[in-house]
Amino acid sequence: MSGLHFSCRIRRTPYTSLAEQSGVTGFSVVNHMLLPKSFTESVEDDYWHLREFVQLWDVCCQRQVEISGRDASELVQLITPRALLRSAPNRCLYLPLIDRDAGIVNDPVVFRITDNRFRLSIADSDAELFARGIAAGRGMSVQIRELAIWPLAVQGPLAAQVVERVLGQCDHLGHFEWDWYEFKGSKLVVSRTGYSSQDGFEIYLEEDRLAEALWTALMKHGKTFNIRPGCPNLIDRIEAGLRSYGNEMTIHSNPIEMRMENFCCLDGSIDYLGFQTLKAIWQQGTRYVFSGFTFGGGPCGVCSTPWPILMDGQLIGRITSAAWSPRRERNVALGVISRRHSAVGNEAIVRDQRDICRPLTNEPVPIP
Amino acid sequence: MSGLHFSCRIRRTPYTSLAEQSGVTGFSVVNHMLLPKSFTESVEDDYWHLREFVQLWDVCCQRQVEISGRDASELVQLITPRALLRSAPNRCLYLPLIDRDAGIVNDPVVFRITDNRFRLSIADSDAELFARGIAAGRGMSVQIRELAIWPLAVQGPLAAQVVERVLGQCDHLGHFEWDWYEFKGSKLVVSRTGYSSQDGFEIYLEEDRLAEALWTALMKHGKTFNIRPGCPNLIDRIEAGLRSYGNEMTIHSNPIEMRMENFCCLDGSIDYLGFQTLKAIWQQGTRYVFSGFTFGGGPCGVCSTPWPILMDGQLIGRITSAAWSPRRERNVALGVISRRHSAVGNEAIVRDQRDICRPLTNEPVPIP
Repeated sequence: MSGLHFSCRIRRTPYTSLAEQSGVTGFSVVNHMLLPKSFTESVEDDYWHLREFVQLWDVCCQRQVEISGRDASELVQLITPRALLRSAPNRCLYLPLIDRDAGIVNDPVVFRITDNRFRLSIADSDAELFARGIAAGRGMSVQIRELAIWPLAVQGPLAAQVVERVLGQCDHLGHFEWDWYEFKGSKLVVSRTGYSSQDGFEIYLEEDRLAEALWTALMKHGKTFNIRPGCPNLIDRIEAGLRSYGNEMTIHSNPIEMRMENFCCLDGSIDYLGFQTLKAIWQQGTRYVFSGFTFGGGPCGVCSTPWPILMDGQLIGRITSAAWSPRRERNVALGVISRRHSAVGNEAIVRDQRDICRPLTNEPVPIP
Repeated sequence: MSGLHFSCRIRRTPYTSLAEQSGVTGFSVVNHMLLPKSFTESVEDDYWHLREFVQLWDVCCQRQVEISGRDASELVQLITPRALLRSAPNRCLYLPLIDRDAGIVNDPVVFRITDNRFRLSIADSDAELFARGIAAGRGMSVQIRELAIWPLAVQGPLAAQVVERVLGQCDHLGHFEWDWYEFKGSKLVVSRTGYSSQDGFEIYLEEDRLAEALWTALMKHGKTFNIRPGCPNLIDRIEAGLRSYGNEMTIHSNPIEMRMENFCCLDGSIDYLGFQTLKAIWQQGTRYVFSGFTFGGGPCGVCSTPWPILMDGQLIGRITSAAWSPRRERNVALGVISRRHSAVGNEAIVRDQRDICRPLTNEPVPIP
């Protein structure tokens, strides 16, 4: 960790001042916006807390891109291999956006607000510009804009009880279901989603003037559940196998390599830009495949450049996220490994930036 | 300034370790990459040094996006209002990229490497995704990719003497001209450009294995010219009227508002996506216009959210970058002001985030 210089270009959120008052000590930058990444407690302490209680996260950096208008559903379906229109309207969908070469552009959660109005809750790339390019290139009748909507995540096993006290009944929502709620007269979407292995909700506040009131109400009603401000937890994310755009995957990755087959319609029943390329990749198989890993040797430190995975001196993969898991007493990691070594046991090693080599074990990650 | 958490997603550059060895104390994040933003010296001290001597900047965050192939020139011309193909091939061009609604997508410097191969040295937005969208939407025959090229800037009045000692004769290059050079057998582009008010060059290294050698050679030969590692200087940038994408302008800005008329072909002799919209905006005039400002009252601190400009209690503009100028003994700033108040004198005030109001003077900025 080093200093981060602030400017208007790296946007504050309506909750940044509240996070600062709560003792935020560090940030990351996602979508040109501040994401709190540490408070006074350690990442290990936050990890245990998240697994037992409930936390409040400022995740405004998950920018909300709206695609609306006559051709909106055509445009959104054109840029994802997932069959967008086959699911119930109250389901929100995690899906890859891909280019015509099947390279992953982003992996948002998509809400179908009405038949001609979609919201993309995006990961760290300017997916809006890609959608604008497609729309302009094809002369489509759509409006594409970033909404002034401010997501807060309530994460942890006690999340439902806190959200219910502030916004009303929410336990009927299934995983990846959403509905409209109201807070102080203002309508807002709530989904049972979040970037953790635990239960949780995301609340999409539409009026920034209510940010402090919403934060304060959740903190107040969460007090008996031991709520505290937090942030996406690196250890928990890795253990849950949650990919991070920019870390595990980039425009050079494709959904097959990233084990997202479940989100890819490959039978030709829907048409999208990258279909032919993606089908060919699927038929041929990819050289690398997304995987989880564990390795010992004490806490590994920050993975800020990909770490090579080596077998007999040959490069067979790379680690892109890693952290010490206090529960497993081993390091946990995500990355890619060559498909033919993807079932390997203890024979591979990982080498970190300090040139320390440690024996590595391949580990399955949850297939979404 | 607060802590910045590192990860693979926020990429290091081939020079980051060298900047760390030179005492970098803080970073910004531009194009998902680290940009050194402070060393042990103060920004005022760096400002005076930059105006007198020469500095070496790691500006790898200016990512190099290559657009090549049969339709490359058609694609690049489609997304900019500047007449791309009318200038000499050894000129590189600063220009806005715009969408069909004339919103600014990015403001890169564009190099025509060959008739069918362009390099965009981009500001802080994923211009690659916009270009990919257009190309896929129109079915164009182009390849679009980010190159593994690593720009270093040598800035300051003594820059030419340092570059000449390392790479050979360069003083014949005019402002915004470029040529091929060689360093240790590796070809590279050098342009007489840079993000400062001073003379300077940008060196586009193509082999990262030579990063340390290039940095070391420039530092060694720069020693007699009092070279030191540095970074884009906020005070100097504001005084020079250099716009920053994400600060002064976004997708909601247009080139007329940003006083980029000189980069806009509006006579209909070239065709680009936003032509009709931009022409209408130009004919009607914009409500706001880009401007420089000065204001007193002692050092203003960091502008991390836009500061309102008020006249008689009415909002008439906003400041998006500001810094104390030790040379002028006043704060200097950039932002927009309503066109009908754009010649205003001392009657307006600026209010910063601490709710301190100070008298503001409008100041012309260099028209590019």
